[in-house]
Amino acid sequence: MEKITPRTLSGFMELLPGKQARMEKLMQVLRDTYASYGFAALDTPVIEDAKILLAKGGGETEKQIYRFQKGDSDLALRFDLTVPLAKYVALHYNELAFPFRRYQIGKVYRGERAQRGRFREFYQADIDIIGDGKLDIMNEAEIPAIIYRVFRGFGLTRFQIRVNNRKILNGFYAMQGLSEKSGDIMRTVDKLDKIGPEKVKAILCDDCGLVDTQADEILKFIAISGTNAQVLVALEGYTGRNEIFDAGLEELRAVTRNLAAFGVPEENFAVDLTIARGLDYYTGTVYETTLLDHPEIGSVCSGGRYDNLAGYYTDKALPGVGISIGLTRLFYVLDEQGLINEQNPAAPADALVLPMTEDVGQAVALAQTLRDAGLRVQFYGEQKKFKQKMSYADKLGVPFVVLLGEDEIAEGVCSVKNMQSGEQIKCPPEQAAAHIQAALAAAGGPLILEK
Amino acid sequence: MEKITPRTLSGFMELLPGKQARMEKLMQVLRDTYASYGFAALDTPVIEDAKILLAKGGGETEKQIYRFQKGDSDLALRFDLTVPLAKYVALHYNELAFPFRRYQIGKVYRGERAQRGRFREFYQADIDIIGDGKLDIMNEAEIPAIIYRVFRGFGLTRFQIRVNNRKILNGFYAMQGLSEKSGDIMRTVDKLDKIGPEKVKAILCDDCGLVDTQADEILKFIAISGTNAQVLVALEGYTGRNEIFDAGLEELRAVTRNLAAFGVPEENFAVDLTIARGLDYYTGTVYETTLLDHPEIGSVCSGGRYDNLAGYYTDKALPGVGISIGLTRLFYVLDEQGLINEQNPAAPADALVLPMTEDVGQAVALAQTLRDAGLRVQFYGEQKKFKQKMSYADKLGVPFVVLLGEDEIAEGVCSVKNMQSGEQIKCPPEQAAAHIQAALAAAGGPLILEK
Repeated sequence: MEKITPRTLSGFMELLPGKQARMEKLMQVLRDTYASYGFAALDTPVIEDAKILLAKGGGETEKQIYRFQKGDSDLALRFDLTVPLAKYVALHYNELAFPFRRYQIGKVYRGERAQRGRFREFYQADIDIIGDGKLDIMNEAEIPAIIYRVFRGFGLTRFQIRVNNRKILNGFYAMQGLSEKSGDIMRTVDKLDKIGPEKVKAILCDDCGLVDTQADEILKFIAISGTNAQVLVALEGYTGRNEIFDAGLEELRAVTRNLAAFGVPEENFAVDLTIARGLDYYTGTVYETTLLDHPEIGSVCSGGRYDNLAGYYTDKALPGVGISIGLTRLFYVLDEQGLINEQNPAAPADALVLPMTEDVGQAVALAQTLRDAGLRVQFYGEQKKFKQKMSYADKLGVPFVVLLGEDEIAEGVCSVKNMQSGEQIKCPPEQAAAHIQAALAAAGGPLILEK
Repeated sequence: MEKITPRTLSGFMELLPGKQARMEKLMQVLRDTYASYGFAALDTPVIEDAKILLAKGGGETEKQIYRFQKGDSDLALRFDLTVPLAKYVALHYNELAFPFRRYQIGKVYRGERAQRGRFREFYQADIDIIGDGKLDIMNEAEIPAIIYRVFRGFGLTRFQIRVNNRKILNGFYAMQGLSEKSGDIMRTVDKLDKIGPEKVKAILCDDCGLVDTQADEILKFIAISGTNAQVLVALEGYTGRNEIFDAGLEELRAVTRNLAAFGVPEENFAVDLTIARGLDYYTGTVYETTLLDHPEIGSVCSGGRYDNLAGYYTDKALPGVGISIGLTRLFYVLDEQGLINEQNPAAPADALVLPMTEDVGQAVALAQTLRDAGLRVQFYGEQKKFKQKMSYADKLGVPFVVLLGEDEIAEGVCSVKNMQSGEQIKCPPEQAAAHIQAALAAAGGPLILEK
């Protein structure tokens, strides 16, 4: 038969089992953490009516979207999880309890130009809290705690959640008489990390049409730094001149006030006036998260407060706050940099049971005993020489091999070999399970390395 | 702004949070069970090169597939998880350890005519074991054990795993001189449950061209029943006349031999000579699983042994055995029949923390203490009247509300209200967590009801 050369499309991640195991662990951390804060799991279709996904329309979205006909239907693959959420909340409004808290970890699709590290199919891991008409600032205050637990769950400590408030920025620009230019200014200031203050000033003056003193005032403002308390004191000096600014500062105070109660250490949190987030969508608190030793990766978890989730589908006012983690890209970048911890166990089984007798019934039962004790156990049934069996165990990377021969059966024990240390002991099956579990608990290690 | 009416495409499942929570639990049972047998998680792209997915081509697949162009690429959405697995194994052959055991739970797409209970996007939950050149019969023997654990994990006891071997059927037809018609005969016999023996005989004679005695011989053969031991004895009477038959019977014996060691009770397992599975693909053991009280649902978990997984992509001989559960349809059918247990907890949180003071810092810390003890906890931050707060707790269906007012703070306790019994106690936070956990452990119940 003529063969078709197998391939996976470029821009689509397909991992080998070891890496997939680590990816699954990251997803499990996300599911567990999101669930621990009372977010409900949601699963919306990958395919939606194209008209609904493109309600906002225009720009990059329309170019990148996967859109196609099937019969008479104009279909498209979702390009994010936010638009489907908006549809979901508008559609099921009467059946939901508000604030509605949902998490969704799912694949989204963007037909971007193929290039290294750019994916056309990638996971987003989102949470959002949607209010019905109103949504208390406490929800915005809780978000950094959730981000903190996620990245701690990944095994990291050297990361920083950076927080700002769009009302502070909008209010400040209004004070300078620059409200109409605030969008352009924010997009420019957003580049500060990448291009530095001189170039930002040049763009502000040359492209945005600001005069020299206005640009200086902005640079001075966004240069405000120090501890959270120091930044808040410095911002205090601007109050009383613009209502929006004052409201934003009040919100920022509320977000920082209970950090300790939320369990977020000061060193993992910073008020950062340079954070604006590109999207016009955000109206209040905005978040970015950076890995302190890897600023070149950029923000690994971003989001913010918005006032109107589903305006294209309903007249209901649905304010919300949400964050998103681009999991596929994050995994790819960390893996490229060697930061996915290869020491963290990734074998498909904790133990491989090797029967050494013709009648394998006892070995089958042994495998089930170990499984009942909570282990992941593969029974090896192939008729191979001992050396080949051990070589398979090596290739799989299983931490333990459990051997059962005539001698062991006669003694009521099994032989447990630690594949890393080479140590081998004989003991009854129940003890074997405990022995393996103790060793596995001692292994572990973080999923992601700091550097 | 003009509104676009939100809708979800027909044939696409989109669940409300409570049902989704139960769906997630079923998925967790599948993941945990598959992993406990040493299967590696795999995640292949939803989109593949259309040429690769359609390598086999023809028939329903070509009609139903979602296929579209993006730029110069001819793309399609996967219609099952087996073809992507074949591609994966052929592509990554040198990097895999064989037998290669993988599970995949993912969405697949078939543009079927829309009708009640038919889905165009649905989950399959598959396991496969792939050998390199050879694969021992013990792998086929292990599959019923895995099916058994899955359905027990769902909370069921009244189900039956039905097993047959295609070699027995092929060998038997060869004895009757009917090898060339074996495909037609099997497809006809497959309908026995639905249309009864008279109609089967009529089709065998009228459409398949068998003579009366041949049809009778076949009906006599497939009518063999009784305990597994009785069926095996009856089959013994046919041995010595055809090698394929004898090989098949030997395999069937191997599959049934260690049932007890695999932990599968006799009543959940039956050798059933009427099972053939429609697909030509299968070459050895075949499996179906039925819910004894709901035969009308048909098989809820099917599969079998095949000799050549990836013949379209590689010359390597890759025999395998696998099963598939159509999770979306299963959930839909069970839900329609009221068999998804509504008593099984599905709230997004175990407890809702209601702050009753202006400064919410203590309540925030209390929520985190409960979370650290392993509970899923939602902090409620909205400024609402007490009655509205409790009404939200009711609507969410949280089993516990934890109140923290001035009195509780002064006493170093919190008030824990059981929303079902109405019972309310005061205790320190650590005790509250233990109290809630004990009550939750006592709740639970099966995910799926028997009837």
